[in-house]
This record gives sequence, structure tokens and C-alpha cells, in this order.
Amino acid sequence: MNSFDWYSPTSIHFGKGKISVLSTKLKELKVKKVLFLYGHGSIKKNGVYDDVMAELKLSGVAFVEKNGVHPNPRYDTVLEAAKICKEEQVDFILAVGGGSVVDCAKAISLATFYEGDFWNDIILANKGHTLPQHIKIGVVLTLSATGSEMNGGAVISNMATREKLALFSPLVNPTFSILDPQYTYSVPKSQISAGVCDAFSHCLEQLFSPEKNALITDGVLLGVMWGLKAIGRTAMDNPNDYDSHANLMWGATMALNGITGVGKTHDWATHQIEHAVSAFYDITHGLGLAIIFPYWMEYVLDITNVDRFFLIGSLFGIIAPPASASDNEKIAVAKKIISAIRDFFVSLDMPTKLSDVGVQASDIDGMVESVVAKSKYNKNFEFTGSLKKLSKLDVKKILELAM
Amino acid sequence: MNSFDWYSPTSIHFGKGKISVLSTKLKELKVKKVLFLYGHGSIKKNGVYDDVMAELKLSGVAFVEKNGVHPNPRYDTVLEAAKICKEEQVDFILAVGGGSVVDCAKAISLATFYEGDFWNDIILANKGHTLPQHIKIGVVLTLSATGSEMNGGAVISNMATREKLALFSPLVNPTFSILDPQYTYSVPKSQISAGVCDAFSHCLEQLFSPEKNALITDGVLLGVMWGLKAIGRTAMDNPNDYDSHANLMWGATMALNGITGVGKTHDWATHQIEHAVSAFYDITHGLGLAIIFPYWMEYVLDITNVDRFFLIGSLFGIIAPPASASDNEKIAVAKKIISAIRDFFVSLDMPTKLSDVGVQASDIDGMVESVVAKSKYNKNFEFTGSLKKLSKLDVKKILELAM
Repeated sequence: MNSFDWYSPTSIHFGKGKISVLSTKLKELKVKKVLFLYGHGSIKKNGVYDDVMAELKLSGVAFVEKNGVHPNPRYDTVLEAAKICKEEQVDFILAVGGGSVVDCAKAISLATFYEGDFWNDIILANKGHTLPQHIKIGVVLTLSATGSEMNGGAVISNMATREKLALFSPLVNPTFSILDPQYTYSVPKSQISAGVCDAFSHCLEQLFSPEKNALITDGVLLGVMWGLKAIGRTAMDNPNDYDSHANLMWGATMALNGITGVGKTHDWATHQIEHAVSAFYDITHGLGLAIIFPYWMEYVLDITNVDRFFLIGSLFGIIAPPASASDNEKIAVAKKIISAIRDFFVSLDMPTKLSDVGVQASDIDGMVESVVAKSKYNKNFEFTGSLKKLSKLDVKKILELAM
Repeated sequence: MNSFDWYSPTSIHFGKGKISVLSTKLKELKVKKVLFLYGHGSIKKNGVYDDVMAELKLSGVAFVEKNGVHPNPRYDTVLEAAKICKEEQVDFILAVGGGSVVDCAKAISLATFYEGDFWNDIILANKGHTLPQHIKIGVVLTLSATGSEMNGGAVISNMATREKLALFSPLVNPTFSILDPQYTYSVPKSQISAGVCDAFSHCLEQLFSPEKNALITDGVLLGVMWGLKAIGRTAMDNPNDYDSHANLMWGATMALNGITGVGKTHDWATHQIEHAVSAFYDITHGLGLAIIFPYWMEYVLDITNVDRFFLIGSLFGIIAPPASASDNEKIAVAKKIISAIRDFFVSLDMPTKLSDVGVQASDIDGMVESVVAKSKYNKNFEFTGSLKKLSKLDVKKILELAM
């Protein structure tokens, strides 16, 4: 089991009507001026906007609105909002929306006080943790998927350079996150299923590691996956079913809050490949992961890592072969488990090929370069992934298989 | 799924050599004077005392030592140490030991500034969360069991009144906890097994609830139990095996840090019954739980809660019967699962009867009164537990069965 340090400063307020803590929190934190950040106005249709406004007024805190955050949040928006924060002397960002809005808020929090080229110096150079100043963030979550509400990560797309990169900083862990499952009732079915796949994939990515000695963490990850698998389709088919949406909301938070992944390395290769795809095509992250993951698993599977797959088999009632089984028998069972995972994604209406969502084979080379670009600051790109180290050629082959 | 608020202010530093963060932490926290609290000197034999002293000296912080904390920490010790804290103007308590030392530190933290009768006004009246002043706590853990290193609970024994009561306050969540699995290598085999049973029981207690709708939490609890089951015996038989001791240490922390139990009620009846037993007999908590739990399960099992048992069956390869099975068939499978849990405890060298550890039938009535005494502040004791509400007579019957 690997050493680790874990600290989560986010207070979680989960359940029906928890929005009522917002005004109290803002007062407790002695906030002077809030940037009320949101997307394209769905919160005006489902009542969340009104609830937030009522709490803002109740708190007596000044605020300025900024809307228009895109589903894959854009660097342009970050810069625009950072300018507002500076001009308006904002001292708190309230992100109301899904992971995109939360991620955007995190980048704004750090970009506001940075004088240089934020994209090159901070995001590309992976230096989000080094900044001396930031703005505190609070979250009112309206989409269950990314887990951004309880971690220090953000993903930002630069449309000009066709890059989609992750930013990490413990500074931007939200101070509080308000999670009312009812706020996700109006999410379209396709986004609910993408959210389930996103959260499930986060667990897979943390489960896949060369080490096999972090059993508590492996068990916890499997537990979250078990819960997500049990409620995924129910949440899709029943927009007003509290329990399935509540479990999805909490499952997605747990899937990437850090405490469920301690003590081991992870394998985020699929994530990196998907980011490259969605930097070219504006597809939903969870959907991209659901397509690519089974191909990645088939590609990396070998006799040295077969037991990782057997762990997952338990979720699908597939029993691991005895240690005495032949290599071929073991690989065959692992392949059956990969098929079961693909079938699970299909049961959530996910497509199985990148070509199903309009990806062109002619873009593959560009996407491979985009994966490599993420390691630009390493100067010499050698590989991505940890369960199996993937070369540039490996990445290309996986993308070709996924077509 | 029930509403909840969760916030954990404890930073965890886990792994080999993590003691090295201690001096830095004390300096960061601007500590002036430490109460260095420990038990009966085992830390002087295994090197932990020397490691802590080196860090204290490196930090340059003043400190005063207090040893002699008992395995079931006593109210007398709390009062003695609180007096020292007041006289010496201690502003930080460093608990070096197992759950007993940590629990004792928590009570000292709150008792130091309280002028009245701390036992009656605060512990018995369950008012630990209302106190205006406390001393911050840091932990260097040397025993994996109680989870006290990452929560706000403590259990204190009053030898004069034969009461063993829990104290809760978010104020006494440790500021940091240093978890080096190597510090548990010298723990006696019997204490290691009791620790596994304690942590496993904490998961059971959170799993058993009338509600069945907190699937993520249920899954996570089962995941922790799966990990504990896998490494328990290995840790007992291999005092220097890093991975099994690391998983036990992290499993015990996860088993009672709160995040693994959110969104549902729990059933702590077994805990309360065990506390009554160990208020009379100074037996190890985990051992008492291992004896009593299977009897409690057999007593409360009925067709309305049978599915809770089926969840646990998965850990033992026992497959749940189909929904169409008869009530009798279902109960039979659940009984098989209870037997498997008892066998698991036995596989860790646990006894199966209270009489095996010297408990006298003549004390049962007194122990029942002790369970009732815990609800003294409720004035009218009606029941304990949530899966099944237990009357005074029920408690008596369970104790009789366990003899």
C-alpha cells in the first residue's frame, strides 16, 4: 500500500432543501461580493436560480452574475470571468451547475490574480498548486457526474489550441458544496446516463493499478461501482425518483473525492485519450469514456493484470477462475468481464464506437498528438498510463479499435 | 437516502516514516505547549516514544508528559490530565497510542475549560458539542481498531459509577493524524484480532438500518469489510507484514470516519450492550463485540430485515435466494450468513461466549441496568437500536443467549 496524505476541506450539505444553508455559509465566511457563475440558463427553468437568488438576498451579500459557461468549459470564459472578478473585487465564487461550471470556477479562482500567461505558465506547466492567491469557491450542484464538487481538479478546453487539459490545486477545493438530488431531476436522460458512466469510469481508473495491495481502497471503489450499477438505469427512467438520483449524486461525489482512491497509483490513460477526442469533438465526457474504456481494457489485458478484472467480475456475478486455471482460461474470463462492462454501458443507452458519434478516422493522428501534447512539459513524451504504459502507437491503436 | 452534513477537518498522513510531518505540523499550528499523552509505556519499547521525542525537540515546542492512560480510558485520568493542562497552559494535546489514548485526549480537551461536573453535565447529558472552548488534538496512532483518529467520538469509563459512555463533539476531531503501519508491528496478536473485529463491527453497525436506500454507503461499508476480512488473519500471523497492517490501519480508520456511514441510520445496540459488559469486566471492546454481535443478529433477524444479511453474504460467497423463495428459505440463508460471520470471528481466535471470558450470569441484570443508564437523560428508557427496537427485556435475552 502506498503512502499518502489526505485532507478535504469541503463541507458537504446533502439532501432535500439543503440550499437553506447557503445564506448562513456566506455570512459565516464574511463574504463581501459573490460571482454567481452558471451555464446557459437551465437553472432558470428548474427553479434553482430562484432558490439561489433568494438565499443571496437573504445573506445580504453583494453579487454579480456571469452565465454562459459551456459544457466543456472554455479558457476564453475563464479569462472573461477572471476580469470581472478583478474589476468587481469579487471575494467568493458561487458555482451553480454541473462539473463544467465548478471546473470553470476553479480556473477563474486562480486566474484572477495571475498576471502572466495562465494557460502556458499554470495549466500546461501543471503549476496550479503553486499560486499564492485564490478566491474561495462554493458549489450548488445540479448534475451528478464529475465529482468536482469535492476535489481540487478542473478540466479546461482551449478551443484555439485544441487542447483540453486538467488543472490541479488543493487551493480550489470548494469550501462547501450543496448537494440536493432534486436539483438534478430536470437533467436530460442522456446526461444522466453520461454521468453514471463518468462516475463509474472514475472508479475503474482508480481500480486499475499495477499494485494489488490497497485492498480497502479497492473494496471501497467496488462498493461505489456496485451502488452506481444498481441505480443507474432507474435514475434515467424515473426523473423524480429521489433515492436513485440521491445515490447517483453521492456516488459521483465519492467516485472522485480522493478518499476512495488513496494508497495506490491509478491509470488515467482512458481519461487522457477521451480528453483528446472531446477536444476535437464536443461530445460529453462520460459518453466518450463509455465508448473508449472497454477498448482500452481489451488492449491492455494480459496475464499479469488479469486479477484486476476478476475484482470487477464480482459486480456482474462472474466468478474468478481458480489460481490453478490456465492463462488462456483466465484471459477468457477477463474478456467476459470486459463484455459485461460494455453491456452495462450499453444498458445505459451508450454507443459502442467513436464513429457512432461522428468521429472521423482522419482525426486520429491529431488526437494522438493531443494526448502527447499533454506531456509537453515533460519534453520527451514516453508513455501514458500505469497498468500498462502506452506509447504513442498504443494510443493510436486504441483509438483505431474504438472506431 | 437520508439527508446529511459531512465535514472532516482531520488531515491524514499515512505511511512509512510519516512521523516526520509532526514537527512541521506543530510549527504550522503555532503550538506553544504540548501535552504528550500516552499509555503504559509500550511506546518506549517499540521506538515510537523516541521518534516522537525527536520530533518534539526538532519543533522546539515546550511539552509536558502524561502517561498511564488505561485500555478503557478512565474518567479519573481525564480529570488529572485536565488539571495539568490548565496549570501548565497546554494548548495542544498529542495523543500517542491507540483509540484509548485518543479518546482520553478528546475528553481532556473539553474537560480542561469546564468548571462544573463534566461527567454529569457533559458526558451523561450528551452535550459535548455545546462547549465554547477546547484544546486542539493531534494523533500518532499505534493500534488499528477504533477509528477515533478521524472522528469526534470518545468512550470514557467511570469506574466509580460502573458506566462506560460515549462523548461526541465535532470540536475534538483531531487536527491531524499520523498513521504509520510500522508503529503497529509490536501490537500483541490478540489486540490485532480485536482491532479487526472492532473495525468490522463498526461497518456492521452502520450497515444495519431499517432503510435500504443508501446503496453507495452500503457498498462502501461492504468494501471496507471485504478488505478487513482479506487481511485480518495475515496481519495477526505476520507482525512485520507491511501491507496487511497498512490495510488494517486504513480499514479501521475508514470504518468509523463518518463518510462511510452517511445517508442512513445505524444500529449501535450491540455497541451499547458491549459497553455495558466491559464496564463490568475490563475486556477488549473488539473481543466483546465479536462475541455479542452474532447473538444480536440471530435475535433481531426476521423477514423484514433479511436482505441486510444477504448483502453481507456476498463477502462469504453465500448467494441471496431469489425474491420468490419462501420466508423460511430466506431466514435459513440469513442464519447461514450469521454463522459465517461468527466463523470469521472464530478464525481470528475470538471466543464465542461471554462465559469464555469470565462473565458471570449473576451480573447480567446489572449490565442491563447499565445499558438503560445510558439513556438516563432520556428519562424514560424505551429501547435501544434501530433495525429492531430493543426493550430492556430484549437486551437481557441477548446477554443470556451470549452466555
